[in-house]
Amino acid sequence: MTEQAPNVPPDVLAETERTRHRRLREQGSHSRADLDAVLQAGFLCHLGVVVDGTPMVVPTVYGATAETLYFHGSVASRSLVASPQAPVCVTVTHVDGLVLARSVFEHGVNYRSAMVYGVPRLVTDPEEQLAGLRRLTEHVAPGQWDYARRPSRKELAATALLALELTDASVKIRTGPPDDGDGPDAELGLWAGILPLRQHWGALEPDPALADGIGAPAHLTGREHRPL
Amino acid sequence: MTEQAPNVPPDVLAETERTRHRRLREQGSHSRADLDAVLQAGFLCHLGVVVDGTPMVVPTVYGATAETLYFHGSVASRSLVASPQAPVCVTVTHVDGLVLARSVFEHGVNYRSAMVYGVPRLVTDPEEQLAGLRRLTEHVAPGQWDYARRPSRKELAATALLALELTDASVKIRTGPPDDGDGPDAELGLWAGILPLRQHWGALEPDPALADGIGAPAHLTGREHRPL
Repeated sequence: MTEQAPNVPPDVLAETERTRHRRLREQGSHSRADLDAVLQAGFLCHLGVVVDGTPMVVPTVYGATAETLYFHGSVASRSLVASPQAPVCVTVTHVDGLVLARSVFEHGVNYRSAMVYGVPRLVTDPEEQLAGLRRLTEHVAPGQWDYARRPSRKELAATALLALELTDASVKIRTGPPDDGDGPDAELGLWAGILPLRQHWGALEPDPALADGIGAPAHLTGREHRPL
Repeated sequence: MTEQAPNVPPDVLAETERTRHRRLREQGSHSRADLDAVLQAGFLCHLGVVVDGTPMVVPTVYGATAETLYFHGSVASRSLVASPQAPVCVTVTHVDGLVLARSVFEHGVNYRSAMVYGVPRLVTDPEEQLAGLRRLTEHVAPGQWDYARRPSRKELAATALLALELTDASVKIRTGPPDDGDGPDAELGLWAGILPLRQHWGALEPDPALADGIGAPAHLTGREHRPL
């Protein structure tokens, strides 16, 4: 047996009261590889905060390392002002298709979803702020950190970057055909299966204000017409 | 002037402290037509509830009329048990593309998003439960209510249907090119524009358990390879 290196996250996420899977139909996972795969497959999360006792769910972009999820916003934003030092839930969901069963009751969705709980930390160290924004930018728009103009000191001061450790998290994944293929409803003679749903990038749309002769860089043209 | 008919929702959503738009960049809307368009364009929402003082954001499907949003789940589900008689926030988001600006700071996302606040009502009237489940099913999988086996009494008893009135809601929509086309960064000579992101249905995947000779109905084949 080899000893685990320090700072390397364990392969398996600790199970807590919150993240223990209660339902059967979804395939609950506490594998770090599954969590990482769900987070790397997208860039939009839904951030849940409590404001004056009421839940508020805000869509926002994120970037993730193996250990930390970064999200950001204006320092004036209500949801972000509420979130440091307060518990949040960040959920990332990818819909892969409709589950079309023989009965309405067994209809559902094939999906991959991650829920991360915790109290985010406002990043105040300038070096970590820059590194986190770089991670976030490269997660959402790979290649743009080196191509576009980087944030000025004034822009950094206007940006609240929050870091949420990926410790209290869980993953749910549903794949495969409907569940009623071996039940009495299979005798109904109805079609059943999956209608897949996919996301793909379109063709770049240049800013109408763009000066003549400025072509799109290869890191952007290379994404056109590709799956997300 | 004609009198407004009863039960017809006003064209403009009432503005509350929660739904008043505070930010400039997103185009905030309180138009009922915009709300309806965002809700009709998708079928997955993120439901925010407060459980033991902590926010919990759960992906779930929904169906919407002009006045009511329906969502459902197992009567055993933690998030649903928490939500009747307690405030929720339901958020629906469609990402339309990446906003690739000249500066990292101006990068963003083109999107359409609706946030609905309220205290959902557990539907207990059997007729309304059936009508609400029909609306939900037809919203997610049009044609399946009449094709698949409808819920039995036992299945209805196992299903918690919640109704959220569309009164306290707001919409944010960002469209168009980056915002820095007329600023000093336009002199940098960098490409800027939009990378669109689209969703489309794939080809139907029959359940491997399907008996020979059962073809997919036209209401499903008609959705193959079409945009969401």
